[in-house]
Amino acid sequence: MDEILSTIESPRDLQRLNAAQLEQLATEMRVALCNLVTNRTAHFASNLGVVELCLALHTAFDFSRDRLIWDTGHQIYPHKLITGRYRDFDTIRTKGGLMGYPNPQESEYDLFMTGHAGCSVSTALGLKSGDDLMADDRYSVAVIGDGALPSGIVFEALNNAGGLKKKLLIVLNDNKMSICPRVGGLAESLDRLRVNSLYAGLKHEIVKVLNKVPLIGDPVERFLWQMKESIKAGLHGGMLFEELGVRYYGPVDGHSLPQLRRYLKMVKDVEGPVLLHVVTEKGHGFKPAAEDPVGFHTPAPFDCDSQQIVSFKKTSTQSYTDVASSAIYDALSTNPRVTVLTAAMCQGNKLERVRDGFPDRFFDTGICESHAVAFAAGQAKAGLRPIVDIYSTFLQRSFDQVFQEVALQNLPVTFMLDRGGLTGPDGPTHHGVFDIGYMRLFPNLTVMAPGDAEDLRQMLAFALKHDGPASIRYPKANVETISAKREPVELGRAEVLEWGEDGAILCCGTLLSNCLKAAALLRDEGYDIGVINARFVKPLDTETVLRALAQCAFVLTVEENGLMTGFGSAVLEAAADAGQNASHLVRLGIPDRFVEHAERGELLADLGLDVEGIVRACQEGLSRAGLLRESAHRRVS
Amino acid sequence: MDEILSTIESPRDLQRLNAAQLEQLATEMRVALCNLVTNRTAHFASNLGVVELCLALHTAFDFSRDRLIWDTGHQIYPHKLITGRYRDFDTIRTKGGLMGYPNPQESEYDLFMTGHAGCSVSTALGLKSGDDLMADDRYSVAVIGDGALPSGIVFEALNNAGGLKKKLLIVLNDNKMSICPRVGGLAESLDRLRVNSLYAGLKHEIVKVLNKVPLIGDPVERFLWQMKESIKAGLHGGMLFEELGVRYYGPVDGHSLPQLRRYLKMVKDVEGPVLLHVVTEKGHGFKPAAEDPVGFHTPAPFDCDSQQIVSFKKTSTQSYTDVASSAIYDALSTNPRVTVLTAAMCQGNKLERVRDGFPDRFFDTGICESHAVAFAAGQAKAGLRPIVDIYSTFLQRSFDQVFQEVALQNLPVTFMLDRGGLTGPDGPTHHGVFDIGYMRLFPNLTVMAPGDAEDLRQMLAFALKHDGPASIRYPKANVETISAKREPVELGRAEVLEWGEDGAILCCGTLLSNCLKAAALLRDEGYDIGVINARFVKPLDTETVLRALAQCAFVLTVEENGLMTGFGSAVLEAAADAGQNASHLVRLGIPDRFVEHAERGELLADLGLDVEGIVRACQEGLSRAGLLRESAHRRVS
Repeated sequence: MDEILSTIESPRDLQRLNAAQLEQLATEMRVALCNLVTNRTAHFASNLGVVELCLALHTAFDFSRDRLIWDTGHQIYPHKLITGRYRDFDTIRTKGGLMGYPNPQESEYDLFMTGHAGCSVSTALGLKSGDDLMADDRYSVAVIGDGALPSGIVFEALNNAGGLKKKLLIVLNDNKMSICPRVGGLAESLDRLRVNSLYAGLKHEIVKVLNKVPLIGDPVERFLWQMKESIKAGLHGGMLFEELGVRYYGPVDGHSLPQLRRYLKMVKDVEGPVLLHVVTEKGHGFKPAAEDPVGFHTPAPFDCDSQQIVSFKKTSTQSYTDVASSAIYDALSTNPRVTVLTAAMCQGNKLERVRDGFPDRFFDTGICESHAVAFAAGQAKAGLRPIVDIYSTFLQRSFDQVFQEVALQNLPVTFMLDRGGLTGPDGPTHHGVFDIGYMRLFPNLTVMAPGDAEDLRQMLAFALKHDGPASIRYPKANVETISAKREPVELGRAEVLEWGEDGAILCCGTLLSNCLKAAALLRDEGYDIGVINARFVKPLDTETVLRALAQCAFVLTVEENGLMTGFGSAVLEAAADAGQNASHLVRLGIPDRFVEHAERGELLADLGLDVEGIVRACQEGLSRAGLLRESAHRRVS
Repeated sequence: MDEILSTIESPRDLQRLNAAQLEQLATEMRVALCNLVTNRTAHFASNLGVVELCLALHTAFDFSRDRLIWDTGHQIYPHKLITGRYRDFDTIRTKGGLMGYPNPQESEYDLFMTGHAGCSVSTALGLKSGDDLMADDRYSVAVIGDGALPSGIVFEALNNAGGLKKKLLIVLNDNKMSICPRVGGLAESLDRLRVNSLYAGLKHEIVKVLNKVPLIGDPVERFLWQMKESIKAGLHGGMLFEELGVRYYGPVDGHSLPQLRRYLKMVKDVEGPVLLHVVTEKGHGFKPAAEDPVGFHTPAPFDCDSQQIVSFKKTSTQSYTDVASSAIYDALSTNPRVTVLTAAMCQGNKLERVRDGFPDRFFDTGICESHAVAFAAGQAKAGLRPIVDIYSTFLQRSFDQVFQEVALQNLPVTFMLDRGGLTGPDGPTHHGVFDIGYMRLFPNLTVMAPGDAEDLRQMLAFALKHDGPASIRYPKANVETISAKREPVELGRAEVLEWGEDGAILCCGTLLSNCLKAAALLRDEGYDIGVINARFVKPLDTETVLRALAQCAFVLTVEENGLMTGFGSAVLEAAADAGQNASHLVRLGIPDRFVEHAERGELLADLGLDVEGIVRACQEGLSRAGLLRESAHRRVS
């Protein structure tokens, strides 16, 4: 058989394929997905699960005109394969290559860059509403996973869609998982719906009979009508959606192309919002992934040979996430009042051991960050010491709960912000580069960033004794531990590792090791550069900061966070409040633009946050101070 | 009859009252509420609606131990009346007096300060979970309005509660309203539930019969069991809640004390989460309010005489909200692509005329800020120019959608942040004093603050032509219009109103008129103080800022926003980037603490943001620069 995938330049080419050819194409797409993950870490199981759904959607609609939003865009790979990006497919998640999420700059078929879950129904409804107002007749489709479904914004959007009664297709891709197995009452309802399908034939007959009974008129008849309607609804399931004004269809076998295409044809022209419940298997078509969809969400690269994994290429260095997870475990072991809450990040935050060791004090809310924080606040009010362990970028979802439920009430909730910094190949939706600003702007919060693994451990212990809310942010990176003799973590105190008259590097976070290396290099050149581990963003160690500004020829702040409102700004505020000159302060951090995807190391180098970049910034400081000698300047620049 | 209300020191005193006395107490509480609003603007209709519910709850539970959370705390007045605060009741919403929301510092009966809607189910669940872990057997009750119900976090919490199966009582206070009439599919479902109650008796019988049918075993029996369950569910209503794993009871007449007390007794010891649907009338017991609950949400003070309003004491000055509303109306009139979205703030933002004039381009999502922003992003992607008109403090709910759906996609959504600044008697949950920081920290956003009404009009016109997202923030205050000859609004350009060598006041926002008055006073003293209308927080007019820093003996930044990350910090960042000394910069704004409730004018004076305070800050600047003459110093300090 001739290969088909390489001939697909756009979804229009699918129209010339017959049913058998579409099945062959699905197989080829799965091979392409498998080939990809032999080379790199990429989203895998979720993509294997939506191959047929992707093909069915692109044959039922014309998404060069119609609107398609893939919620939680990591399931976008099959879509990329058939929308003109097959040839570049092996560049995915590499610097300068395709993004691992939808990207409007890559293709007209990608409408929104989606990495945070749950917004697809809102944006699809907005698109439909916009198209209608522009008198532009287009279909609008959102594909959303069952993991994202409990996210509050989905409910808000379904409710609004039910009220507006716009024509809108919501495809529920139900693989019985978010990234971790699903939780909550809704999960059980979906389980029931899937069981219901066994009786599809029988149901059909009963509904037909009920439809023939004409009932209108007086109260008793109205009552009977209600009974009839509720029987029908109970039979086809999905009352939750129906109550919101969204018509429910399904469940459909998400790996049967004929069934999918038949259903899509059927619901395509239903007036008003419709939810089509599609049951898929995460990892479908690749046995090891289907059997362990959590492990194969973003597996380490592996060699595979006809459904067999030959070897994982995993390295075994310790990450800050490992350190945090182990510190959390220890905290729960020693203090019965400590609980831990996460939002579908049990695997990402490596909390499996905590979950299994302390099942009654481990809470996974699913992708419901807002609720997780308010829930933690309730626990804190009852006397517990909850730890909220959520990625920096996803905690943005809880911004208002951090404000009202935690900071305003001054409750002792501890935030562990994993992925605080550049996360690498996931790109701009996942970089956690705003939290220093958004956490420090509320009163009562204590905001910390550890300089190394030992700091991280100490800070968690500190936070759990602190009388008020506190946050600790650390990156997705391997640990480095500073060898120097260390000072204990103390509220609002920075740690002076080395003092230098020529300049001071004031580092907020784990770029500390780069700063120490840079200072050592400059010391070799004869410059006396100090390094200070800031530890606290808030309360800032004003005394040390002002002393550095007063005594050093220049001060360099270093942070893996946006410069706009970040740690450097906090230092500037302290200087201004003291009426102290800070014109010799240089700020290094993330500039005011969204940072693309690439390996974290590549991004740090690009942004001047690697050792060389920090040396260069120090040279700028020395130069401003008139201390830079020509030789050093030549050497690096 | 002896007065009862004045004898109630705590809810324990309710236990000695018989049914008739409780009814009398309810009447007395309503009189107290009516007396209050003759003096001041306060939340009214919602409080009239929950008098019986409040009494029933406090007789069924002991909330000195049990947990009670009033969601959207403005319905807290009856609760305050019977929890030891009757004597201070007429101080409510005044400086130093009782807060208009729950306040843990006032009473052990207030657990959370709640002004943002929807978090009560989460915090009540957290409290229950905490109490259980502490082996502390307490009931946990959340009272939530139907207006807050569609808020995403409620759904997240219900889903989590359904999964955890904890004993939890959620009282749905259904008054068929949020602050504006409700919207969305859920509203229609609740309407159906209320109708269903007509058949309560008949239902009861049928359920009894169905309960007698024993059905277990093979597939066909399971199917019949499902039918039976769905008939029961359809009969008693509330399938939405049942699908989430929350048992539904009701609807109950919320003004019948006996019925409320009977139902509360019934559901009190049901295992697992329970929702009790209570139907109340907003404004109940005071005819004008019951007939116009929107108008009487927070009415202007009025004299009332036995159910009759004698006169409203309203003044008729123009507010920034009026100006914004009229500018929005004009924008919709002239450009068919402009839409406006709000989140239950149609009345607060005075959008009634816009809603009525352009029904197809006006969208009220209900209290669903997250969805509103993502929905607007979809519209923008389809080619529209949506305006999102939401209070500054409530837009915090959309922080992550501002990030992902708007800023990251660089879509032309215009944010109108009403209540940007100190809102007065509502207090810390309603002050909008963080938005300058939280809007400027994301790339791509243009962030503006008008100096006066004319600026506001111009900025909206500017934003609607600007190729990207933009925000405009303005306070809850009467307008002041600067009389000077004005420059047109231009991207990233400040407006120099007066130049002065001795000092420059760089004002971000409508405190501009205070700044001009302060400068005039100082001019009388012989000081040459300039005033600059900053207009743009981002992009900042770096040229003008640096020029002022270079040429003036001091620079004072003034903003009605948190100093931490605010406009002053942006100025400091610009100075540092240019290596320019800013030690002569003084920042005026909201300090790093939560600001209490009081009239806005009182708060501005307390925080040194009135004319006198600005004069004092200028004197500090002059003093730092060695320019202050003794006489001037004496005069004001």
